[in-house]
Amino acid sequence: MDKAPWIGLIGLGTMGAALALNMAEKGWPVAVHNRTESVTQQFLKTAGPLASKLTGAPTLQALVDALTPPRAIILMVPAGEVVDQQIAALAPLLDPGDLIIDAGNANYLDTERRFHDSRGAGYDFMGIGVSGGEEGARHGPSIMAGGEARQWQRVGPLLRSIAARFQDEPCAALLGPGGAGHFVKMVHNGIEYADMQMIAETYAIMRDGLGLDAPRIADIFAGWNGGPLESYLIEISAEVLRAVDPLTGQPMPDVILDVAGQKGTGRWTAIEAQKLGVAIPVIEAAVAARNISARPEARARGAQTFGALPQRLPPDALPAADLEQALIAGKILCYAQGFEMMTASSTEFGWNLPLPVIAEIWRAGCIIRSAMLNDMAEALRNSPDDDLIFAPFFSAKLIHAEPALRRVVAAAMQAGIAVPALSAGLSWFDAMRTPRGSANLIQAQRDFFGAHGFVRIDGQDVPHGPWGAG
Amino acid sequence: MDKAPWIGLIGLGTMGAALALNMAEKGWPVAVHNRTESVTQQFLKTAGPLASKLTGAPTLQALVDALTPPRAIILMVPAGEVVDQQIAALAPLLDPGDLIIDAGNANYLDTERRFHDSRGAGYDFMGIGVSGGEEGARHGPSIMAGGEARQWQRVGPLLRSIAARFQDEPCAALLGPGGAGHFVKMVHNGIEYADMQMIAETYAIMRDGLGLDAPRIADIFAGWNGGPLESYLIEISAEVLRAVDPLTGQPMPDVILDVAGQKGTGRWTAIEAQKLGVAIPVIEAAVAARNISARPEARARGAQTFGALPQRLPPDALPAADLEQALIAGKILCYAQGFEMMTASSTEFGWNLPLPVIAEIWRAGCIIRSAMLNDMAEALRNSPDDDLIFAPFFSAKLIHAEPALRRVVAAAMQAGIAVPALSAGLSWFDAMRTPRGSANLIQAQRDFFGAHGFVRIDGQDVPHGPWGAG
Repeated sequence: MDKAPWIGLIGLGTMGAALALNMAEKGWPVAVHNRTESVTQQFLKTAGPLASKLTGAPTLQALVDALTPPRAIILMVPAGEVVDQQIAALAPLLDPGDLIIDAGNANYLDTERRFHDSRGAGYDFMGIGVSGGEEGARHGPSIMAGGEARQWQRVGPLLRSIAARFQDEPCAALLGPGGAGHFVKMVHNGIEYADMQMIAETYAIMRDGLGLDAPRIADIFAGWNGGPLESYLIEISAEVLRAVDPLTGQPMPDVILDVAGQKGTGRWTAIEAQKLGVAIPVIEAAVAARNISARPEARARGAQTFGALPQRLPPDALPAADLEQALIAGKILCYAQGFEMMTASSTEFGWNLPLPVIAEIWRAGCIIRSAMLNDMAEALRNSPDDDLIFAPFFSAKLIHAEPALRRVVAAAMQAGIAVPALSAGLSWFDAMRTPRGSANLIQAQRDFFGAHGFVRIDGQDVPHGPWGAG
Repeated sequence: MDKAPWIGLIGLGTMGAALALNMAEKGWPVAVHNRTESVTQQFLKTAGPLASKLTGAPTLQALVDALTPPRAIILMVPAGEVVDQQIAALAPLLDPGDLIIDAGNANYLDTERRFHDSRGAGYDFMGIGVSGGEEGARHGPSIMAGGEARQWQRVGPLLRSIAARFQDEPCAALLGPGGAGHFVKMVHNGIEYADMQMIAETYAIMRDGLGLDAPRIADIFAGWNGGPLESYLIEISAEVLRAVDPLTGQPMPDVILDVAGQKGTGRWTAIEAQKLGVAIPVIEAAVAARNISARPEARARGAQTFGALPQRLPPDALPAADLEQALIAGKILCYAQGFEMMTASSTEFGWNLPLPVIAEIWRAGCIIRSAMLNDMAEALRNSPDDDLIFAPFFSAKLIHAEPALRRVVAAAMQAGIAVPALSAGLSWFDAMRTPRGSANLIQAQRDFFGAHGFVRIDGQDVPHGPWGAG
């Protein structure tokens, strides 16, 4: 120990331990505490030379005593009630100006509440979203912070020092007050669901529609990783498809059950988008796909009742280049929806979220990091008031990729291969370029049965139809 | 006045007034109250001979005094805070055993809360969903009640007497405790959104893809109304398409702006399905379509940027019979999702919702009333533990209709006509008959970056891949 720490960390699970080591490695003395004391001891033993930067605290009081005020204490404990319990236990021990930072996967509504509860309660509070898994936490995550500028002034340098870097620029930023950081992290995760689902859909087309085996599909993904789709998720798709099961010698994905788990952040994204009145059908489709995957008995019965699908496509029906373009288009459409949702939240909550900065801090460290996020950051800087699809760089990409997306979706749907996310993207795109849609019929119906009224295209102020009944 | 009333009604807006007249007509003396006294006076003046059954009460106290205990007072006031204010004002005036019935469009979570707050507070509480618009309220709505059996014993005969009838069977039933009635009403409305959206999608294909004019499309809808699609919504689709604008002589829908409004129940349905982990992509697509319709400037810009769609289909590409079959399939798939959601809520909340009864009371009075609901009621009675798509009557219909649905969706998507709900239905159906989906890749990715683990298809207990990092 070369210097008394002002930063503490509670919760030495996978993520907390990795974050503590990351801070120590960047030169910050850290006091750590875990509810179970032996976990702390074990952690310190395995910290190697970094142990000199780390102080173990057997109790909360000892943790507080080990820190020089104004303190900053990071909570890395399970989201939900545990966070509230931890805050309740910690708050009485703190001095004014001390700061509690929830770095877990909190729902932003909880973060908003905790932020407001902290006012006048003798401590400060921040919520930060941390993405990148254990690897990211240990060597550089993407950090989406919510809180006040004066708090960020104090802990920003520390958080930026431990964050991932994209071309030397740290992937950590203060995005807005209160729950803004956790809100952005939530949307990040919703996009992650959609990214993964669309990759899985192109995988299904290659596996079932084109009859390719896992190593061949791995090669195709690896090839895409050298182009506009370059990203962590495409990279690891190739890696897992190349991996061989030690038990059977089969490609690893071929022995894994097709039932996807979820921890709730995708669902939260869909719920919040509904509240904001923003259409995010690609993300919704991705969440729905996980829910449907979780019903294997029903799906087996469906195959028995209706005949098994999917069906093979004609051998040259879809070149891999079409699938690549479809995925590029789907990805742009999905991100456009995610950014639209963040714009809406800015208006709704007065957050003024900096969309270009968000794209920038997603360029490294987090699960959805990709080359395209650099293009998005640039597009959002150049056209800050535009939907992403109207930024010239991306509208050109969409115009180029659209025919392939259309071919891929139509072919998959004709063959019976489920492509809910790609097709939801295409439907959204088609609706977003239809100047005269079909909602006029819906308005006519609504006025007929409920006298809800409508607007006329000629501007005349006659808001009801001649159907009388009303 | 021939007899002292025990039933009161607060809120003489369109729906409340209609409901009061309906009760009076069925022979029930009713005391009525409106915040603005002149509304009450006006209402009584226009009640004609039914006025003899109606007592106007200028104040809440006068309303309570006019009723013989045990009283039952129906609230037909705007959903939300107004209901809470009304309950708070009314409760101190009531005697134990008196009953407040919220007949507005409450969120079921509010109804649950109000139900629990009523316990031990000196009054009873029920929440009932009432569907059918003004016409239904006046001459026979569908009534979805939530509450306790002893309350239903008292007011059930009254509510059944004023409800719509299907083959002499009243469309009113107690569906479960607390918020169960309003929950079912919410799902009803979600299905209504989807029904309307899928009709609008076939309309768009006929208008834009096949170039048919409104009267021709009206004829086609009218024709469908003589077959399996026979329903109120198809019937009024034909009617509004036949209606002529008095100002311009144009078909009425052609002068209505394509921006659909919404009052929130579709959104609620999507949110609650997310919480339950049930996929209802057709309803989600319908809500999203309304949200997108509300962005006419963005759509105009989309048309400008990407080229206007939709494009005309080849003249004989899609016979009207294909569209009819597609709508039949879409409708079955959407209702299957709605019923799955109600099954899940039964499990989650211990409600034991009677699905066949729900289908039965939707057969008349409400907006989604249709011939098919009679078939659904029968199917759900015969196969109470099955998903609707597996009931033999409907699996046969789906097998018959599926090729047409697939042709319609593929043709529309190739032509650039947005069919988000029909295509979401088809994607769901394809996923529900795919015994081996693509979620294995998602599980491999999740294990790779987050050590989330997976299940192997061979049952071996090795929940992680050989990618090490974890």
